[in-house]
Amino acid sequence: MAININRLEKDLLELAKFSDTDNGITRLSFTPTYSKGRNYVEDLMKEAGLKTRIDSVGNLIGRIEGKDSNKKVIAFGSHIDTVPNGGKYDGSIGVLGAIEIIRTLQEMDYVPIHPLEVISFINEEGSAPVNIGGVFGSQAMMGLTKINEDFEKELSKIGLSKKDINNSYREPEQFKCYLEIHIEQGKELENNHLSIGVVTGIVGTWRFMVKVQGTASHAGTTPMDQRDDALLKSLPIIQHVNQIAKDINMGMVGTVGNVMVKPGASNVVPGEVVFTVEFRSIKNEYLEKAIELLQEKIGSIKGAQLKEISKSYPVMLSDDLQDLISKVCEGNSISYTKLPSFAGHDARETAKNIQSALIFIPCRNGISHSPLEFASKIDIENGVNVLLETIKKLDAK
Amino acid sequence: MAININRLEKDLLELAKFSDTDNGITRLSFTPTYSKGRNYVEDLMKEAGLKTRIDSVGNLIGRIEGKDSNKKVIAFGSHIDTVPNGGKYDGSIGVLGAIEIIRTLQEMDYVPIHPLEVISFINEEGSAPVNIGGVFGSQAMMGLTKINEDFEKELSKIGLSKKDINNSYREPEQFKCYLEIHIEQGKELENNHLSIGVVTGIVGTWRFMVKVQGTASHAGTTPMDQRDDALLKSLPIIQHVNQIAKDINMGMVGTVGNVMVKPGASNVVPGEVVFTVEFRSIKNEYLEKAIELLQEKIGSIKGAQLKEISKSYPVMLSDDLQDLISKVCEGNSISYTKLPSFAGHDARETAKNIQSALIFIPCRNGISHSPLEFASKIDIENGVNVLLETIKKLDAK
Repeated sequence: MAININRLEKDLLELAKFSDTDNGITRLSFTPTYSKGRNYVEDLMKEAGLKTRIDSVGNLIGRIEGKDSNKKVIAFGSHIDTVPNGGKYDGSIGVLGAIEIIRTLQEMDYVPIHPLEVISFINEEGSAPVNIGGVFGSQAMMGLTKINEDFEKELSKIGLSKKDINNSYREPEQFKCYLEIHIEQGKELENNHLSIGVVTGIVGTWRFMVKVQGTASHAGTTPMDQRDDALLKSLPIIQHVNQIAKDINMGMVGTVGNVMVKPGASNVVPGEVVFTVEFRSIKNEYLEKAIELLQEKIGSIKGAQLKEISKSYPVMLSDDLQDLISKVCEGNSISYTKLPSFAGHDARETAKNIQSALIFIPCRNGISHSPLEFASKIDIENGVNVLLETIKKLDAK
Repeated sequence: MAININRLEKDLLELAKFSDTDNGITRLSFTPTYSKGRNYVEDLMKEAGLKTRIDSVGNLIGRIEGKDSNKKVIAFGSHIDTVPNGGKYDGSIGVLGAIEIIRTLQEMDYVPIHPLEVISFINEEGSAPVNIGGVFGSQAMMGLTKINEDFEKELSKIGLSKKDINNSYREPEQFKCYLEIHIEQGKELENNHLSIGVVTGIVGTWRFMVKVQGTASHAGTTPMDQRDDALLKSLPIIQHVNQIAKDINMGMVGTVGNVMVKPGASNVVPGEVVFTVEFRSIKNEYLEKAIELLQEKIGSIKGAQLKEISKSYPVMLSDDLQDLISKVCEGNSISYTKLPSFAGHDARETAKNIQSALIFIPCRNGISHSPLEFASKIDIENGVNVLLETIKKLDAK
């Protein structure tokens, strides 16, 4: 039993037509183009024999009942929204691949024991025209949305309310598990010529702002030995951010992505420098250690201070599901490796409540969120087949 | 024979009233407020017995004839325009001090042998509402203005033309010398408790832009050992700019005043960094050496390149005048030192054509171009008296 990659490829190309731009795919949640794209997907679901509904926040769910009405749902899917000028594969493979799996099961007259659900979560990318954050749909369904006044105000702009968020919620007990197939958005698989990445967890991302205070002064009349140059004081800290990541573990990353110099004139000694610091790691202890080392460095530099911007903690995925997927790969002689995900996904949110798995397939040059995003037919085929077999094994359990 | 500091102080406070802002002095050239301020100064000149005229570009000149009509002009002055939210002293001391010198000479029935001219140059600061550069008036009078199409277009916005620039020009042969008294805009005099700075020359200022090309990539999915981080590659160059200045000579300065990181997001590895580099030195050879060392460093870093923005060369002031001013200080037991100027002045332009001198007096904390700018009564008094005596000695020669 294997999927029909040509049929799936046709769907991917069809869905890609729902875009507000010619340069890459722009299908932002809560826009007319998104609705049209979702209608297209809903029609595919219906044709595949799924009973569909759109929940109170906009998640599209297609369901087929199982033989045993006492069994919990095996859910799988992803998202069909994109970033502006994004690609054809990020998210779409997870949703359309799931539908292709249902079609394949139906064609083989496979009747599942568990109910199966294909879910297309809304606004995973967070690129909706309102500021409601990413993994919006999966957080709502998992009851993880953090609601405050500003958030409600943004929600109201797209005709949603707190009540809609609450109505999207589903008890974790309904689910046996959630599985997602997605492009890697990195080069680990490609560089090592591997077909499948069995994701161990989603890294935590800790963001900080470092402010270094100096004294702005005339770049002509202030001698070198009388300067309090905020930029010069910043250099060792910026250098250190990168060194810290390397020193702690090659599997973590540390980045200074932006630097602002004030007043920022060629003839003025910098009086203040503000820069971003981001660490990502699959291990909390690495993140803790990184901040400890950064604090130490900052403490040694006069006028420097660290401000926390946000902390998302690492989320581990189900070991059992990882083992199961690995066995499927082995049984089919498909090369694979276990690896963490350095980007967020709907599976990160579901994993907080229910057993979840994430399967990566290679994408060319690690590029995503770009018109250049590309996943090969064979890689997509392998990935969706692995998911299909995993679901069958889970259904049999 | 000594000046009346109380009278001069009153003039300084009166002139300060011509300002478009309450927070510091804003008297930008070619604005109505500037014209009113210049009218006030012209009236002071007339009261002092000077015959006044405003030349074709807006320089105000007050003249008193000498006994010997064959003698050349001894000119002295400065400027009365300010930067936005500037101070009461920068420039104004030079012009009002010069008028006070004429008044003092007149009161003592001193009749000069040489014609004397008090000059208030227009737009020294270059803060006029049109983009015509600084030391505008002195450059025009010295025939040093670089005229091109863009410049003429800007000129036309304030009703001026190339012809007006040309009409401002005066043959160097008309002048015996030009002298200027100005606040230091540095801390050298204050730190060493000195009253007078005899300026040896005005430093050259060389400005460059460094562009460092890397590869923008996802800060989550790009491992540390696979990055081409433009910011990290920039750090040693920025560090080096400062080190170069220190290594070559403590009397020179090197500054990175602004840094721009692209795309400049916390979650993207920097793909391009552009920053300013400025070196100032009184010696061309130091500037040449600095750029040689910078080029060497840049050459060692892949994707880094240097672009010249502007080069103003060091201008040396008259040794004879420096000696004369030094002797006046010594004769009156006024402490002094010789030092370069790290900022541009009208005297830099006049020095290109005629013997010129620049006398610095201390300003508090080295601050200028600020509402906090301050020069003490005693320092102003000492400075203007030194200039007065220098003029008398020059007149006798």
